[in-house]
Amino acid sequence: MTDDISSDLQPNYKLWLEHKGEYVFGPGAYAILSSIDREGTITKGAEALGMSYRYAWGVVKKIEKKLGLPLLETFKGGTVGGGGAVVTEYGKQLMEMFVRVKSEFDRVIEDQ
Amino acid sequence: MTDDISSDLQPNYKLWLEHKGEYVFGPGAYAILSSIDREGTITKGAEALGMSYRYAWGVVKKIEKKLGLPLLETFKGGTVGGGGAVVTEYGKQLMEMFVRVKSEFDRVIEDQ
Repeated sequence: MTDDISSDLQPNYKLWLEHKGEYVFGPGAYAILSSIDREGTITKGAEALGMSYRYAWGVVKKIEKKLGLPLLETFKGGTVGGGGAVVTEYGKQLMEMFVRVKSEFDRVIEDQ
Repeated sequence: MTDDISSDLQPNYKLWLEHKGEYVFGPGAYAILSSIDREGTITKGAEALGMSYRYAWGVVKKIEKKLGLPLLETFKGGTVGGGGAVVTEYGKQLMEMFVRVKSEFDRVIEDQ
């Protein structure tokens, strides 16, 4: 008699997007773009994740370099502390594909 | 005008099973158990993957230790070079959960 151990097992995964076979966008980048999108500036977006501006900006820059496309559009404001960043359409496309696949993966796992 | 870059992007993933929150079974272990199951002995199963007996057996032992359950049942044969290994019911349960989730993940990715 063999017990069913399936209930003690939990599938887990790491998801990422590749561009021409190369790793380009994973959970960290997704969190950074989402946070910048929500907060409106790179500084506040990074801060909300407990990251430095420099680190978050570096992650974004690296992806932009690989893709040859901008993920953020930054602008200067007219008042003190003004200015901000918006996620470009390219950035949105990455975020949307990532979250779409992630949602479906999570649904698969919940069904186990 | 922004191009649609989605067609240049390909989702990819790594899948594994956890037991009480700890990594226990991934693609390597799946390949090893499948190969032993197919070939009938640990030696031939490892060989078919270009691995040493020692490495394959080590992977299996590590999982058995974490789970406290046997994944392989080995037996000695009566003739020269006889004997072999069969995957236990516990081993099959791990393989089945892994391949079930993997198939569904692959289907999600193909649909992108």
